[in-house]
Amino acid sequence: MIIILKENANKNDYDSLIGMLTDRGVKVSGINGVNHNILGLVGDTSKLDIDLINAQPVVERVQRVQEPYKACNRQFHPEDTVIDVSGRIIGGNHVQIIAGPCSVESEEQIISTAEAVKKAGATMLRGGAFKPRTSPYSFQGLHEEGIRLLLAARKATGLPIVTEIMSAEHLDLFADIDVIQVGARNMQNFELLKQLGRSDKPILLKRGLANTMEELLMSAEYIMAGGNSNVILCERGIRTFETYTRNTLDISAVPLLKQRTHLPVVVDPSHATGIASLVEPMSLAAIAAGADALEIEVHCNPSKALSDGAQQLKPEKFEEVMKKIKPMIEFCGKELG
Amino acid sequence: MIIILKENANKNDYDSLIGMLTDRGVKVSGINGVNHNILGLVGDTSKLDIDLINAQPVVERVQRVQEPYKACNRQFHPEDTVIDVSGRIIGGNHVQIIAGPCSVESEEQIISTAEAVKKAGATMLRGGAFKPRTSPYSFQGLHEEGIRLLLAARKATGLPIVTEIMSAEHLDLFADIDVIQVGARNMQNFELLKQLGRSDKPILLKRGLANTMEELLMSAEYIMAGGNSNVILCERGIRTFETYTRNTLDISAVPLLKQRTHLPVVVDPSHATGIASLVEPMSLAAIAAGADALEIEVHCNPSKALSDGAQQLKPEKFEEVMKKIKPMIEFCGKELG
Amino acid sequence: MIIILKENANKNDYDSLIGMLTDRGVKVSGINGVNHNILGLVGDTSKLDIDLINAQPVVERVQRVQEPYKACNRQFHPEDTVIDVSGRIIGGNHVQIIAGPCSVESEEQIISTAEAVKKAGATMLRGGAFKPRTSPYSFQGLHEEGIRLLLAARKATGLPIVTEIMSAEHLDLFADIDVIQVGARNMQNFELLKQLGRSDKPILLKRGLANTMEELLMSAEYIMAGGNSNVILCERGIRTFETYTRNTLDISAVPLLKQRTHLPVVVDPSHATGIASLVEPMSLAAIAAGADALEIEVHCNPSKALSDGAQQLKPEKFEEVMKKIKPMIEFCGKELG
Amino acid sequence: MIIILKENANKNDYDSLIGMLTDRGVKVSGINGVNHNILGLVGDTSKLDIDLINAQPVVERVQRVQEPYKACNRQFHPEDTVIDVSGRIIGGNHVQIIAGPCSVESEEQIISTAEAVKKAGATMLRGGAFKPRTSPYSFQGLHEEGIRLLLAARKATGLPIVTEIMSAEHLDLFADIDVIQVGARNMQNFELLKQLGRSDKPILLKRGLANTMEELLMSAEYIMAGGNSNVILCERGIRTFETYTRNTLDISAVPLLKQRTHLPVVVDPSHATGIASLVEPMSLAAIAAGADALEIEVHCNPSKALSDGAQQLKPEKFEEVMKKIKPMIEFCGKELG
Repeated sequence: MIIILKENANKNDYDSLIGMLTDRGVKVSGINGVNHNILGLVGDTSKLDIDLINAQPVVERVQRVQEPYKACNRQFHPEDTVIDVSGRIIGGNHVQIIAGPCSVESEEQIISTAEAVKKAGATMLRGGAFKPRTSPYSFQGLHEEGIRLLLAARKATGLPIVTEIMSAEHLDLFADIDVIQVGARNMQNFELLKQLGRSDKPILLKRGLANTMEELLMSAEYIMAGGNSNVILCERGIRTFETYTRNTLDISAVPLLKQRTHLPVVVDPSHATGIASLVEPMSLAAIAAGADALEIEVHCNPSKALSDGAQQLKPEKFEEVMKKIKPMIEFCGKELG
Repeated sequence: MIIILKENANKNDYDSLIGMLTDRGVKVSGINGVNHNILGLVGDTSKLDIDLINAQPVVERVQRVQEPYKACNRQFHPEDTVIDVSGRIIGGNHVQIIAGPCSVESEEQIISTAEAVKKAGATMLRGGAFKPRTSPYSFQGLHEEGIRLLLAARKATGLPIVTEIMSAEHLDLFADIDVIQVGARNMQNFELLKQLGRSDKPILLKRGLANTMEELLMSAEYIMAGGNSNVILCERGIRTFETYTRNTLDISAVPLLKQRTHLPVVVDPSHATGIASLVEPMSLAAIAAGADALEIEVHCNPSKALSDGAQQLKPEKFEEVMKKIKPMIEFCGKELG
Repeated sequence: MIIILKENANKNDYDSLIGMLTDRGVKVSGINGVNHNILGLVGDTSKLDIDLINAQPVVERVQRVQEPYKACNRQFHPEDTVIDVSGRIIGGNHVQIIAGPCSVESEEQIISTAEAVKKAGATMLRGGAFKPRTSPYSFQGLHEEGIRLLLAARKATGLPIVTEIMSAEHLDLFADIDVIQVGARNMQNFELLKQLGRSDKPILLKRGLANTMEELLMSAEYIMAGGNSNVILCERGIRTFETYTRNTLDISAVPLLKQRTHLPVVVDPSHATGIASLVEPMSLAAIAAGADALEIEVHCNPSKALSDGAQQLKPEKFEEVMKKIKPMIEFCGKELG
Repeated sequence: MIIILKENANKNDYDSLIGMLTDRGVKVSGINGVNHNILGLVGDTSKLDIDLINAQPVVERVQRVQEPYKACNRQFHPEDTVIDVSGRIIGGNHVQIIAGPCSVESEEQIISTAEAVKKAGATMLRGGAFKPRTSPYSFQGLHEEGIRLLLAARKATGLPIVTEIMSAEHLDLFADIDVIQVGARNMQNFELLKQLGRSDKPILLKRGLANTMEELLMSAEYIMAGGNSNVILCERGIRTFETYTRNTLDISAVPLLKQRTHLPVVVDPSHATGIASLVEPMSLAAIAAGADALEIEVHCNPSKALSDGAQQLKPEKFEEVMKKIKPMIEFCGKELG
């Protein structure tokens, strides 16, 4: 950590800063500049509160040298984290295709969709039982019943289930679910993250609409600090000024996150773009950039979907997309499933 | 609601769309364009799911004519909502100054700060007991003990208390709190909003870092749809590419929200800018633009603050700021307190 | 075009609006809603000024049905535009790799880099003679001399040249250049675009840092409206709140632009990310998403580069990247060069 | 300037970095950290190219300590710059109201509007002769004829003229204009800025839609580095994800820029919001925050305006707004005109 001091630092304030820092066990070295003096801190600065230092009267600015995340930092854990989800491997040499409807709507709908995506090559099933909707007047999901139907679909197809949690109070309902998803709007719902840290289930953590990659990693850190290291990151588009797409899919997040962290990275091209016809090219681009899995929305009858119809693929279209995705996975030297 | 049809709409799909719409009780009128046909829907379109219509095969695009929010819409409730917070009036001709530390840290700290801000003219006390922090390694608040200390500070000064909730599971702890705050990161924590809708306490709802005003109003709608109409909106800065300030304070949100909704609007210049020296000019600008209250961070000893030291004012600086704020409130024809 | 009228429209103002519209040769049909009446306009609405209609006292809102661009619109020109650049084909089944240094710095530097990138498989040469720099104290390019050196490098290698223009006053200097580039900061320098519309040279038009795809297409329209239809679009990253990358590369712009326009689309992974190690994965992703060319910065000695050293590849690293790019181009059923 | 070195820095590369730095006349001090070594540079670092240092193989990251702008930096020029525009003072204790139509459309229109705004209290006249329009099919301004009409309006009213330049080639036409405006889209048209640096006319420089305050100051620096220190900065709204307003007016830019620079700061509430009814509250907020002038669009007949009708005020509405603005200026201890 580097501290840049104000030009006309008061001696007492300066001494009080140095005292505070040495009290916290770091060693302080100084460089005298012309207009600014600079302090370099040596030691374990991870316990220092950057806000506290910034608030000292002699401090102009503080710069971190070390990244603020540790458990998920590749520097301290160079090998890829590989997560076994009921037999499906996320990370390493594998690519999983997680497909299914935006919302679970009925037993017939989820089972027929599960069968269709499995047939086309999907390796895991997604479907929402608890739906975060902007409007209180929109369909909010089938809740407990939705979870029950997802488990029925798993029984019918063998596909492991990914589904979203919206409140820690519902955690018991997710006991048999394979992967618990935290949606973009809850990426910084820290109370939820803390409770998921006490679980041992794989957590698929989506990047918030206006969150930096560093914030995503800090939210992963919340879960890992609680003891759960089965965290899967997901890029699902960020909010920009562009209006043709719902969000802007930040594919550069895939290789960049993989440099910074050992956790696997998933891409959701359906939510990122909001446009069914972009799912194929964005899926191919994501795999080419190194994504460990894709989450794709597929609905047997998008025109009757209770949510997000415009971005869901019909099973026959999904089959076509899979015919492009499979050779791309192989071309990239990886393995589907 | 207006539906723009695709150029080469299939007759069956067209009939199925019309059937779906009339089934839902709306009347459909058409205009034949050259390349596109247009449908206008007459009746109560608030129950129509825009996603569902967008997903119909013949639909090119759907445009709302009516706004998607009702309970908070000024069109259906022209008079200002005025909320009585334990004797302090938010809305109408009043301006409240809500001041206090970012976090409650100790009995001595919160009581001395409460006394200092009261002396300077603050009319309500803020302070965080549950703190949403980006890092799991930062101070997370005193929790129950923090609530207890806030109530002690109210007893000592008579100032009503505003404090943040982070999970519906903690709701019981807030039974004696005057205003429950929902932070920016929880603006779309819909499960929390639903539970607050069942409370009758005033809710101060902060705009998310990357949320539109319409989304803020939809989140207010969640609370109001549950039966709680005591909602206070808060603009606290949005995330942009600018780096000199922590966020960009969108002061135009004040008059614009007041055109669209009858709910009161508060501004938080401390979090919005992250810079103590900007609190005064931004406070004056917010009042000039019509804000119903300000939320200002004040700490007896910012250089020892456990969070957000750099943006908190010392009591003596806050006193100076209040000497500018008070005449501005009067100049704008309003009343402090 | 659809016009939504205000609730309590004044009869005279209404008649004046209808008069204005019919004077401009469009037919007006109406739908009577409950709170709002809606007008649909039939005929050539491209000459109607949307601002003018919005300013009419009875108008609540105006919505376009047709897109505002025509010359570049795929609807009116379904086949891909394919541009022959001195024997290199941009568009269709071809992928061009345009490589070279950020700035031309010396004869030795540009010729040795040109030879190196050609050897590695690049098909065109890029290099800046006029450099848009944020600071007036940074290197501004070699100007005329830089153009001369680029032509020398073309002579030495046969690679066609792409280089940036910053002012229409310099147009004469570009007489022998193969492709004139318009940088992101000049995307809406409309006077420059108009003058380039009178040229017959291929123009590589970069998307501005905060411009929508529609605005990019409208800037292409400026050039095409002047008579020059040799326009190549370039996605080079947009500005967001993310800080780990310089900009956010919007790869979804590639397939989306190709749906809307018949013009070719190029991707610049070097400027988009600002990080040399991301050039390879982003190049592969861009080709997988359908890009017609890549623009990649390569410098013989990045640590001595006069601009943008951190994002430029060394020739040996570029060679490695090309070894990945070439099979990806083939895998996508396309041809390098 | 601080340089953070990579963990495993090669000795030769390290020596070559130190050599490069000392060759450029700066003194280098070091701090040895655990994982990273840190260099502090003492001396005139303004001539060091940060890109070049970043590109050195041993460098992890570079941080500026000094700001990159000098001529406009308040640190080196503590007193406010006050600019005399043909007798009107911009800066210091004065507030100017610059009003007039978006575009000059006819002699009758500009003269009657000039007379109306003067009567209401405006102290300067604005009007566009060269109009940057997104679409090539929109009205582009009257050009030379527009300049002639503006001068006629000045003759009729005595109001100094502010009007926008779009290309350095038109500079001769602006010989009699009082203030030359550079629009948001040309804020980084560096060739134009350089030529304006050779002029001695006051330049009103608008912040670009996606430009930081630092970039705005660097563009001012371009003009000042050329010898013209008569630069007036203008905040006119930045682009965000919000859709209710055209842009987001960043009022915090006013006090923040005034901390960093000695140049005057103007606010344009008309372009920032795009909504006529927001001009009054945003004008009051801007003055309360310390703006030195406002630029307000007024049109005798907005419903016939050839551009931006929806955001222009009628003269009678402008008169009402001025009745609020004048006492606010006095309340803030300043003087109109």
